[in-house]
Amino acid sequence: MDVYKTLKEEAFEANMEISRRNLAIYTWGNASAFDAAKGVFAIKPSGLPYDRLEPGSMVLVDLEGRVLEGALVPSSDTKTHLVLYREFKGLGGVTHTHSTYATAWAQAARPVPLFGTTHADHCASEVPCTPFISAASLGNDYELETGLLITDTFMAGGLNPVFVNMVLVAGHGPFTWGDSAAKSVYNGAVLEEVCKMAYLTLALNPQAAPLPGYITEKHWERKHGKDAYYGQRGHT
Amino acid sequence: MDVYKTLKEEAFEANMEISRRNLAIYTWGNASAFDAAKGVFAIKPSGLPYDRLEPGSMVLVDLEGRVLEGALVPSSDTKTHLVLYREFKGLGGVTHTHSTYATAWAQAARPVPLFGTTHADHCASEVPCTPFISAASLGNDYELETGLLITDTFMAGGLNPVFVNMVLVAGHGPFTWGDSAAKSVYNGAVLEEVCKMAYLTLALNPQAAPLPGYITEKHWERKHGKDAYYGQRGHT
Amino acid sequence: MDVYKTLKEEAFEANMEISRRNLAIYTWGNASAFDAAKGVFAIKPSGLPYDRLEPGSMVLVDLEGRVLEGALVPSSDTKTHLVLYREFKGLGGVTHTHSTYATAWAQAARPVPLFGTTHADHCASEVPCTPFISAASLGNDYELETGLLITDTFMAGGLNPVFVNMVLVAGHGPFTWGDSAAKSVYNGAVLEEVCKMAYLTLALNPQAAPLPGYITEKHWERKHGKDAYYGQRGHT
Amino acid sequence: MDVYKTLKEEAFEANMEISRRNLAIYTWGNASAFDAAKGVFAIKPSGLPYDRLEPGSMVLVDLEGRVLEGALVPSSDTKTHLVLYREFKGLGGVTHTHSTYATAWAQAARPVPLFGTTHADHCASEVPCTPFISAASLGNDYELETGLLITDTFMAGGLNPVFVNMVLVAGHGPFTWGDSAAKSVYNGAVLEEVCKMAYLTLALNPQAAPLPGYITEKHWERKHGKDAYYGQRGHT
Repeated sequence: MDVYKTLKEEAFEANMEISRRNLAIYTWGNASAFDAAKGVFAIKPSGLPYDRLEPGSMVLVDLEGRVLEGALVPSSDTKTHLVLYREFKGLGGVTHTHSTYATAWAQAARPVPLFGTTHADHCASEVPCTPFISAASLGNDYELETGLLITDTFMAGGLNPVFVNMVLVAGHGPFTWGDSAAKSVYNGAVLEEVCKMAYLTLALNPQAAPLPGYITEKHWERKHGKDAYYGQRGHT
Repeated sequence: MDVYKTLKEEAFEANMEISRRNLAIYTWGNASAFDAAKGVFAIKPSGLPYDRLEPGSMVLVDLEGRVLEGALVPSSDTKTHLVLYREFKGLGGVTHTHSTYATAWAQAARPVPLFGTTHADHCASEVPCTPFISAASLGNDYELETGLLITDTFMAGGLNPVFVNMVLVAGHGPFTWGDSAAKSVYNGAVLEEVCKMAYLTLALNPQAAPLPGYITEKHWERKHGKDAYYGQRGHT
Repeated sequence: MDVYKTLKEEAFEANMEISRRNLAIYTWGNASAFDAAKGVFAIKPSGLPYDRLEPGSMVLVDLEGRVLEGALVPSSDTKTHLVLYREFKGLGGVTHTHSTYATAWAQAARPVPLFGTTHADHCASEVPCTPFISAASLGNDYELETGLLITDTFMAGGLNPVFVNMVLVAGHGPFTWGDSAAKSVYNGAVLEEVCKMAYLTLALNPQAAPLPGYITEKHWERKHGKDAYYGQRGHT
Repeated sequence: MDVYKTLKEEAFEANMEISRRNLAIYTWGNASAFDAAKGVFAIKPSGLPYDRLEPGSMVLVDLEGRVLEGALVPSSDTKTHLVLYREFKGLGGVTHTHSTYATAWAQAARPVPLFGTTHADHCASEVPCTPFISAASLGNDYELETGLLITDTFMAGGLNPVFVNMVLVAGHGPFTWGDSAAKSVYNGAVLEEVCKMAYLTLALNPQAAPLPGYITEKHWERKHGKDAYYGQRGHT
C-alpha cells in the first residue's frame, strides 16, 4: 500500500490547477504538498508539461532534500519549497508560478500595497518583496538561498506567514503557501488578481491610499478570525 | 407548493451568470432576487463555489434580515442587499462582484466619468463612489452600514437609483441593481466594461472631456425614455 | 424564391462573427450586407441577442430607410449604415461595434496613429476620428446625422473610403466597412487589434514616430496594389 | 516516398501552434521548418487561414528562394526566413507573428530590457530591436532586406543568435527561432509573455533596474549550460 498516495494526488491536483487557472504557461510553475508528520513533500518533476503529469509522476522529497521515491528529477525549485516547509510552521502546500502581474511586481521590485478588501480578505498586510538575491548567496546554493531570502525577509519585517501567505522574490516571481497544496494554489490565483487590481489602482490614482487599517482588520477577521462568519460552518 | 420557487431560480441564474461573465473568481460575488410584494429576497449562500450552487441552495431572507428558509448561512453581504431593497424603490435584484476594473476604480476611490455612449446607454451620469466607511460605522454593523453608505451617497448627490443603477464602494467594489436579478448582473457586466473603457480613455487622454450632456440624454432616452425606440416593442 | 436569401445569410454570418470575435457583448454591435444593384441592405434587428439571431430575423431596408421585409424593428443604427452605403461607393457591408480599445480611442477623441505594418496592411493612413456630433445635428435625425458626420469627416480630410475603411465616432465607437459584410467585420477586428497595439505603443514610447511613409505604402501595395503579391491568386 | 513528409508536418504543427497560442489572428503569422542537410525549408502558404492548413499545403523552398514543391504561393515573408537560415547557423525553425505586446514594443522601436528570470531562462540579453528599414533597402528586395536588417543588427551588436533567439523589427513585429520549428514558436510565445511583463514592469517602476548579470547568467546556465540541471536528462 502506498502511504503517500494521497499526498501525490494532492500535489498533482495543485499542479494541474496552476495550468487551469492560467498562472503559468508551459512548465513555468510548480506546486508541492507537505506531510508534516512524516516530514515529506510531493513535488512536480522538473520541466514536464502539465498535460503529461499524473499523480505517479510526483517526486517525494524529505526535508534534507533527498529523493525518497520517483524516477524523475524533482522541480529545480525544490530546495526553495523545502526551506519554506522547514522554517514556516503549519504549511501544507507551496506554489510557485510566473503569473503575469505578480511577476511584473516582482520585476519592479515593489511590495504590493493593500488597496482593498479583495486583498484584505486573503492577506493581512501588503505583499512583501524580497531584495535581489546577492551574488554570494547565489553562488552558494541558489534555490536553497532563495528560500532563505524569503524567510529572512519575513524575519526582518516581523511578518507572520500565517497572516501573510504570499511573497514576491525580486526579479523572479511569486511564492504562495497555505495549509494545503490546494490552498497554496488558491493563494497564487488570489495574488495574481490582487496584483492586477493594484496595478490598475495606481494607474488610476498614483496617490491611492492604502485601505484604512480598521477595514483590513475587519475583513481579515470576518474570514479568518475566531468569530469568523464568512462561509458555512464546518465547510471548507 | 413552493411559492418562492421562481425567486430562487432567478437568484440562482443570476449567480451563475456572475461566474459565466467572469465578474468574479471563486466565490467573490453574490446576487439576489427580490419579491417586493412579499418583502422577501433569495440570495446566494456564503462562501459556496458557483459550481456547487443549485436553485435549492438559495437562502430566503426578509427585510428584517431573518432567514425564512434555507439550511445554509446567507452571503456575508446580505444586509447590504437588504438596505438597498428597503431604501431604493422598484428593485428586483442586486448584484455584488469583485470584477477587476470596477474594483480598481473603487480602490482608487474615484467616480467613473461618463465618457461615451456605452456608458450613457445604461447609466445617466458618472458612476458614483462612496467615501471609505468610517471606523464608527464599521464597528456598528458593517454590512448594514455599507448599505447605508450607498444610500447616503445617493441622497447627498441627489441621485436617483432608477437612472443610476450602479455604485462603487470605496476600497471594496461594485454593487449594481435593476428591476430583476438578471438585470442587476447585466448592469454588473456593463459596469465592468465601462470601467475598462474609462481606464483606457484616461490613459490615452488624461484631459478627456465627459460626453456632452445632450448626447448622454439622447442615448439614455432612446433606450429608456417614454419614446424609446431601441429594441423590439414588447421585447425585453 | 427569396431573392434576398444570400444577402440575409451574409448579414447573419457577419453579426455572429461580431460575437465570436468578442467585438461586442450582449447586443452592442450590428452588421449589414448591401446589394448595390438592388439598393437594399439586410441588417440586424434592434436589441436582439446574438444567440437568438437567425438568417430570417435580418431586416431588409432600402436606401430611403423603408423596411421592405422583416417582422422586427431594424437596428437603431440603421440610418448610419444607410448614409455610408449612399455616400461611399463600392461598399458591400458595414459593421458597428463597441469593441473595447476602439471605443476607448473614440472616447479619448483621438485619431489612431499609423504605428506599424499591422495597421498599414489594412488601412493606408491614421484612423480618423470625427468631432463630437453637434447639438443641432443630434436634434435633427441622430443616426442619419451620425452617418453624415462620418462622410463629412472624410470629405474634410480628403480621405478615400477605399483606402481608409474604418472610422471612430467621437464619444461613441467604431464603424468599419468593406466590399462584403464579412470584410467589414474583419476590418472591425483589425481595428480593435490596431487600437490595442497603438495604445501599448504610446504607453511604451509617448514620442513614438509614425511608420515611415515608404513602409506604409509598401505594405498597402503588397496586399492591395495592382502588383499585390500577398495571398494566393484567385483566392480570397 | 516523400522525403520531406516530416519537415512539412513540423512546419504545419508550428503554424497551428501560432494560432492555438493566440500569437496571431487570421493569417498574421507564419512558421517554417528547416532541413539544414538538404538546404530546404517548409513554410506556410501566403494568406491562408490556419483552419484550412494541412501538412500538404506547406510549400518547400530552397536557400535560393526557389519553390521545390507546392501548388501554393509561399508566405510573403519567405525571404526573411531564408536569410535567417542562411546567415544564422544551427537553426531548425523560424517563426514570425504579430503578437500584441511584442508588436507594440516593435512599434515603440525599443529593445526589451531583461527584467527578470522569465526572460533570462530563455534569452541571455535584452531583446534587440532593429532600426526602421531604409527606403533604399525597401526599394531593393523588401523581405530579403528585412532578413539582412536582422542579421546586421546582430552583427553590429555582437550578438550570438544561439543565446539571443528573438528580435523585434522596428515598426513591424517579432521574429523568433530555435533548433526546431516547434522551438521557434515556443520562443514566440515566450517573447510575447516577456514583452507583456516588461511593459507592466516599466509602468509600475519607470526606473526598474535590469536583472543583475549574475542572476541572468545563473538562469541561462541552469537551463542551457553544460551543467544544466533544469528538466529531465534525455528529455526534451
